[in-house]
Amino acid sequence: MWTLFETRSVRILALTLLSCGLCSGQGTDDCKPSALNIPGAQYPCVYPDHRATFRMMAPDAQKVQVKVPGKTLDMVKGEDGAWTATSEPLVVGFHYYSVVVDGATMADPATYTFFGSGWENSGIEIPEGPEGEYYRPRDVSHGQVSQRWYYSKVTAKWRRCYVYTPPDYDAEKTRYPVLYLMHGWGEDETGWHIQGHMDFILDNLIAAKKARPMIVVMDNLNAVKPGEDGTIFTSRGLRPPPRPATPPAEGGQAAAPPPRRGGLAGFTGATFTEMMLTDLIPMIEKTYRVRTGRENRAMAGLSMGGMQTFLTTLANLDEFAYIGGFSGSTGGRGGTFDPKTSNNGVFADAAAFNKKVKVLFLGIGSMEGPGAKNFSEQLAKAGINNVYFESAGTAHEWLTWRRCLNDFAPRLFK
Amino acid sequence: MWTLFETRSVRILALTLLSCGLCSGQGTDDCKPSALNIPGAQYPCVYPDHRATFRMMAPDAQKVQVKVPGKTLDMVKGEDGAWTATSEPLVVGFHYYSVVVDGATMADPATYTFFGSGWENSGIEIPEGPEGEYYRPRDVSHGQVSQRWYYSKVTAKWRRCYVYTPPDYDAEKTRYPVLYLMHGWGEDETGWHIQGHMDFILDNLIAAKKARPMIVVMDNLNAVKPGEDGTIFTSRGLRPPPRPATPPAEGGQAAAPPPRRGGLAGFTGATFTEMMLTDLIPMIEKTYRVRTGRENRAMAGLSMGGMQTFLTTLANLDEFAYIGGFSGSTGGRGGTFDPKTSNNGVFADAAAFNKKVKVLFLGIGSMEGPGAKNFSEQLAKAGINNVYFESAGTAHEWLTWRRCLNDFAPRLFK
Repeated sequence: MWTLFETRSVRILALTLLSCGLCSGQGTDDCKPSALNIPGAQYPCVYPDHRATFRMMAPDAQKVQVKVPGKTLDMVKGEDGAWTATSEPLVVGFHYYSVVVDGATMADPATYTFFGSGWENSGIEIPEGPEGEYYRPRDVSHGQVSQRWYYSKVTAKWRRCYVYTPPDYDAEKTRYPVLYLMHGWGEDETGWHIQGHMDFILDNLIAAKKARPMIVVMDNLNAVKPGEDGTIFTSRGLRPPPRPATPPAEGGQAAAPPPRRGGLAGFTGATFTEMMLTDLIPMIEKTYRVRTGRENRAMAGLSMGGMQTFLTTLANLDEFAYIGGFSGSTGGRGGTFDPKTSNNGVFADAAAFNKKVKVLFLGIGSMEGPGAKNFSEQLAKAGINNVYFESAGTAHEWLTWRRCLNDFAPRLFK
Repeated sequence: MWTLFETRSVRILALTLLSCGLCSGQGTDDCKPSALNIPGAQYPCVYPDHRATFRMMAPDAQKVQVKVPGKTLDMVKGEDGAWTATSEPLVVGFHYYSVVVDGATMADPATYTFFGSGWENSGIEIPEGPEGEYYRPRDVSHGQVSQRWYYSKVTAKWRRCYVYTPPDYDAEKTRYPVLYLMHGWGEDETGWHIQGHMDFILDNLIAAKKARPMIVVMDNLNAVKPGEDGTIFTSRGLRPPPRPATPPAEGGQAAAPPPRRGGLAGFTGATFTEMMLTDLIPMIEKTYRVRTGRENRAMAGLSMGGMQTFLTTLANLDEFAYIGGFSGSTGGRGGTFDPKTSNNGVFADAAAFNKKVKVLFLGIGSMEGPGAKNFSEQLAKAGINNVYFESAGTAHEWLTWRRCLNDFAPRLFK
C-alpha cells in the first residue's frame, strides 16, 4: 500500500491497480512510475537499482535524446513511434531532466514541471529507502505554505513570497522565530517547497521535537531598483552569468541548459539585501506572529542563495544570529580567504564573531569538491566556530539541500 | 510603467528596458512578450490586435506546428533554426497551447506551464484592456492562498487543497463564510489561483466592498475509495472519458489533446461528495475561523467541477445555500430536464427550493452554445429562481470562468 498521497509535489499513484490495460512500450513490473509523473504516465519509470527508463512519443522525429544528470542518452525508436532509453543507475533524489527532439530542447510532457535553470524542466525522483523518510509526508501535523504578496518600496514592484507556518500556528497564539530560506540560480520562490519538500522536512522535525516550531520565508532573489540594470542570467552569452557558487562536479546535476532564449532575470545582491531589510522583514514581522531581533532570525540558501545569505548576513550581524550556506560560497573559497580582511573583516575578531553568530553552517554534497570543506577548515583555523556538513554521494542538487536543511533546522533558535 | 509585478501567475517584465540586445527572430516593437513567458523569453509575443507570434527553436526538425485554441498553425523555419508562426487575432484571456515537433506534442519551453487537459501545457495570456482590471493584482490588501494537507478517511489518502483567506484574516478575529470552488476536467487544485486568478478577483471585490470577505477552498476532484475503480480520463480510448459538461464550441478552447499517454485519474462523483462532507468540510471548519451552517456555505465549479457542484449540492441542500455552475451542467440540459423528476425531484417544489437556495447561478461563455441558457429558462418556467450569466465572446476557457466568479462572488452570503 504505497498509494497514500495525491499531490503535485509527491504523487504516488495507485497505478499498480490499473497498470495492465495501460502498459505500453517496454515497461516491466519492477520499473515503477516516477512519483513526479502526471496522473497516468507510466514513464519515466525507475527500477529497484535506480536505472530509469524514459519514453517519448515522437513518431516523425529523426533523433530523440534525453538529458539526465551528467549524461545525454540517445533514445531508440520503437514500432509504435515511441522512443525509449534506459539510464545507468541514477543518484537518489530529485533531478531535473529534459528531452531533445530533432534539436528542440523541451520538458518531457509526462512529468510535472519544475522551475530550474530558468525554465520549466521535467523532473524525476529516484526514491530513497527509509533514509528518505524525513522529506516525505507522514501522518503528523502539517504546517501550511502560503503565497504572500507584498509591495517593495526598494524595487517599486509587487513581489511574491511563500511562507511556511508551523502546524499549530493558527491554534497557538505564541510567536515564532523566522528562517529566511533562499533558492538557487535559475530557480524561484517555488523551489524550496516543490523540489525541496521543506514543508515535510519541517513538519517531521517539529513533530519529532527535533526542531523548534518556526516560520520559514521563501522569497525570490531577483531584485533590482527602477532603472537599475541587474545581472542578467543567460547561458547564451549575451551577458555571462555569475560563476555558480559551486560548479557542478563530475556526474553532478548541471541541469539541462535552457533552450535558446534569454533566461534572464534582474538581480543585484546589494539591492536584494536592501529590499529584504526594508520591505520583506518588516512585512513578515507585521503580518505574522513573529519573534523579532537577531536571535530569532536565521538566513540560509542554496548555491547562489547561499552566496546571497553570506552577503546579506555577514554585513548585517546585528540582524541575524544564524547563517547557513548549502553549496553556497562566501567568495572566500579557493585559497583567497584571509580572516583579517575577507568580507570586510567580519571574521577578524573571532571571539566577537563567535559570540554573535550562534550557528555558521556550511553544507555541501560530497561530489561537489573540497571547496566548502577547505573554507570550513580555514575558518576553524582562524578560530571561527562553524558546522561542516557533507551529504554523502550527492552533487549540486536538491537531495544535498534537503539534507542540509534537515541538519541545519534543528540547530536553530536553541 | 507596466512593470509592477513579478510572479509566476502574472509576470509583467521590464523587458522593454532590455529588449534591443535580446531581440532575435521577427520580434517587432509592437509585439509584446506574453505575461506568462518565463523570464527573458521574447516569444510568444502578442500584438495590439491580439495576433500572437510563436517561436520554437528546433534546428533539425522537419515539421513544427503550434496548436492554439481552435487551430493548428504550421510554423516556418528561419535561417537560425527557429520556427515561427503568427496567429489570427486570439480571444482575450488565458489559453492553453502546445507545440508539435516532428510528431511530439510538448509544452513550449518559453512559457510557464499550467496543468490542464491532464498535463503541463504552455499558456499564453491575451491581455484585456481596462475591463480586465478585476483579475489583475492591484494596490489593495491581498489575501493569501495556502497549501493545506489533510487526511481523508473516505479515500484513505492524504490530500492537498488550497485555501484562500481574505486580507484581514490574521488581523481580524471574526469568522468567515466559505466558498468551495472546483476546477474542471484535466485540471487540478492549482487551477483557480494560477490560471483563474481567483485571489486577485476576491482581493479586488473585497477591497471595493462588492463581496463579503470569505474563505475559498479549492480541492481536487479526484477521489476514489480504496479498491474503487474510478472513471479514467483519457483521450486515447482505453476508457472513454465522461462527456465534458459543455463541449468546446466552434472556435472554443478544446485545449491540445494530451500526448500519447494515459492521462487518467480516479474519480467518482459520489465518492467526492462523501469525501467532501466527511473529511474536507470538517477539516476546514476545524482549522479555520469559519461560519458554519448551510447559509454560510457555497459551492461552485467550472465544467466538470460545475457538474460535481450540482451533484453534491442538489443532493445536500441542508448543507449548501449557494450554488454556482460555470460552464457546468446538471445533466438536465438538452431538453431532457423535467422539473418534477430530474435530480431526484429537488426542483419539484419550487417554493421550497427557492426558500432554501439563496443563489442558483448558471454561467456560460457566449460561444459555448445555448445549453445553459435553455436550462436557465426551463428552471425559470418551473418557478425556480436562478441567475443566468453570459460571458460575451468567450468559449469554454478561463476568461469565462474568471468572469463567472467575478459576477458570482458578490452574490454570496448577503
